[in-house]
Amino acid sequence: MDVLQPADVSEYVRVFDTTLRDGEQAPGCSMSVSSKIEVATQLRQLNVDVIEAGFPSASTGEVESINAICVEVGNDADSPSICGLARANIRDIDICAEALKNAKYPRIHTFIATSDIHLAYKLRMTKLEVLKTVAKSVTHAKSLCDDVEFSAEDASRSDLNFLYDVLSVAVGCGATTLNIPDTVGYVTPSEYAALIARVTAEFGQKGIIISAHCHDDLGMAVANTLAAVKAGARQVECTINGLGERAGNASLEEVVMALETRKQYFGYSTRIKTQHLVGASQAVSRATGVEVPCNKAIVGANAFAHEAGIHQDGMLKNRETYEIMQPHLVGATTELVLGKHSGKHALAERIKRISGRNLGGEELEQLFKQFKLLADNQRIINDADLEQLIMTQAVTTI
Amino acid sequence: MDVLQPADVSEYVRVFDTTLRDGEQAPGCSMSVSSKIEVATQLRQLNVDVIEAGFPSASTGEVESINAICVEVGNDADSPSICGLARANIRDIDICAEALKNAKYPRIHTFIATSDIHLAYKLRMTKLEVLKTVAKSVTHAKSLCDDVEFSAEDASRSDLNFLYDVLSVAVGCGATTLNIPDTVGYVTPSEYAALIARVTAEFGQKGIIISAHCHDDLGMAVANTLAAVKAGARQVECTINGLGERAGNASLEEVVMALETRKQYFGYSTRIKTQHLVGASQAVSRATGVEVPCNKAIVGANAFAHEAGIHQDGMLKNRETYEIMQPHLVGATTELVLGKHSGKHALAERIKRISGRNLGGEELEQLFKQFKLLADNQRIINDADLEQLIMTQAVTTI
Repeated sequence: MDVLQPADVSEYVRVFDTTLRDGEQAPGCSMSVSSKIEVATQLRQLNVDVIEAGFPSASTGEVESINAICVEVGNDADSPSICGLARANIRDIDICAEALKNAKYPRIHTFIATSDIHLAYKLRMTKLEVLKTVAKSVTHAKSLCDDVEFSAEDASRSDLNFLYDVLSVAVGCGATTLNIPDTVGYVTPSEYAALIARVTAEFGQKGIIISAHCHDDLGMAVANTLAAVKAGARQVECTINGLGERAGNASLEEVVMALETRKQYFGYSTRIKTQHLVGASQAVSRATGVEVPCNKAIVGANAFAHEAGIHQDGMLKNRETYEIMQPHLVGATTELVLGKHSGKHALAERIKRISGRNLGGEELEQLFKQFKLLADNQRIINDADLEQLIMTQAVTTI
Repeated sequence: MDVLQPADVSEYVRVFDTTLRDGEQAPGCSMSVSSKIEVATQLRQLNVDVIEAGFPSASTGEVESINAICVEVGNDADSPSICGLARANIRDIDICAEALKNAKYPRIHTFIATSDIHLAYKLRMTKLEVLKTVAKSVTHAKSLCDDVEFSAEDASRSDLNFLYDVLSVAVGCGATTLNIPDTVGYVTPSEYAALIARVTAEFGQKGIIISAHCHDDLGMAVANTLAAVKAGARQVECTINGLGERAGNASLEEVVMALETRKQYFGYSTRIKTQHLVGASQAVSRATGVEVPCNKAIVGANAFAHEAGIHQDGMLKNRETYEIMQPHLVGATTELVLGKHSGKHALAERIKRISGRNLGGEELEQLFKQFKLLADNQRIINDADLEQLIMTQAVTTI
């Protein structure tokens, strides 16, 4: 049982993937043990720093799958950390440590809510009781595992002074990663950046990694996570395809590629092997049965597809007119799809590609008219449709 | 032909829906005329301010569908504005004006790119030529239609001084809405806010509406749009379900509900009748054949669904622990889904609801064990599964 000790903790942004925990908690997204191992294998190939493999106290099946992931994916010197989630109580933490026993780099991630509303209604605890619970549970976790992460659930709606108190206790008892979740997906990037900047100023200097965990209820999970990095967070918690509770978590592929594409702006990037992003996305889709939406950034079928004539024309002249990253960097390819919005330029290029013919002048005009008529009634015109059109056209010309 | 003149232009954020234009341009998202009318009807019911109905010069079918929308949805005093897109040339603008002739409140939306890369490679024009083209086309549009919107395509990658020059010419020639698109989905919220703030300071005082149009290539379209509102934009261009070129546009439902939920923070909201959001989302899904992802914020099946025990427990005690908006406000309902992550509390509640029985003690413990075994092998446990479990349990107890 070792702890990963990167040369310089401030050098890069750690990617903590929680597809197998927060992602799996989404209704209808449960995965079989073999599916989980397949996803964990993909995550390792992506080179994520931490795999949150599950919530061991949820069921015995959960313990078995976490253990299987440790054995199959997290058992050697090059493994990512394998992490389990545990409520801030002795039983959860014991089950978690046991589930992780075969991991080379185990991490116990324990949490308790810190917002007034969660204390009053869900936990029914006083602030003092919460502080004592944090002390007891982080100390216990640390006695079982060197790498302990602490999360203040609903941090973004918590009283800042109380949040500081809780985090101080967690650090004092041995937590080395402090996660500041926007549990309900409520904050804006400016607000979250301000919170992360303050927490970083207070705790980041002590060699503690500050972590962002954002939900997408108002559509801002990715932007909030990125704002956190700009403000000092050096761990991002995300899921493949943005799965997770309710509207889901920050999407790993979007966060990673935003940091990569805008490296100059953010100043930090991750160690993800981005060429495996599309493959990982598809693996998670198979494992959960949840399809990847065509308009999903980075990994959706349309992310690098262009149908509109103006866009296709631009792409044929210089890809950078409408593409800010090269698709092969994420394991995808550019597609110029022909449909009713396409123009003559793209049509001529495609015909040249499929038939070798250089159409122009009146011949192209005629074919373009036929093409538009067809496209008004059919969403996508594929190569077979075009060959048919060309043949009909040839016959008509004769 | 009239122009909408709201009492106070700074009072609220206009919603410009482009599902039928930018949304339809996405590969595979073409819609039939009847589907477009159905979507436009939903948009009117939502009370959007402007419907961008299409790009008339794309095809004759496009002109027909825009005209049909004007007649069916945009023909009376209570109609939204109906808008058509036109490149900055006389032919496109003439076709656009003709397509909109039956609209009560027509708007011509003309555009040209302003970034160096688009000028050099796509347009192959000098800056002076672009300025002249803007002057000529906006003047022509204004002669045909009082309500003219001008877009500087790829504004976020444009030289700021040149952008100012172009916008000045557009305003001088009669444009009353200036749209500042992040065409390729490249900027961060801070950068976009800075750009919008500068443009607003320069042009917003002249009674001109500054408009945001963001793409989601790096997952920040919604956050960028919201940052723009905070910086002075009073029109947001969005699409239902976030459809649109490549990774799509800012999702209307997310932008609207973020402004609504965080009204205190943003200071402005829209006039959208939010209770129709889920209905509109489903209508667009039917019209395009593109399913709404389960983890889509606001309108996805899981947006207000909770399976995890901790979350269900919180929800049963106080909904605000895990819900930041009331689902009925968007036409949805809360769902507590039973699966392997669910706890005893939610199970007991559901059994009470379906059978009227108050289970507790050993009886509940036993049933909970059976439930967990079943849930380890089956993603979602529905009421019929539970009834079966209760019966088996009853038999065993006998």
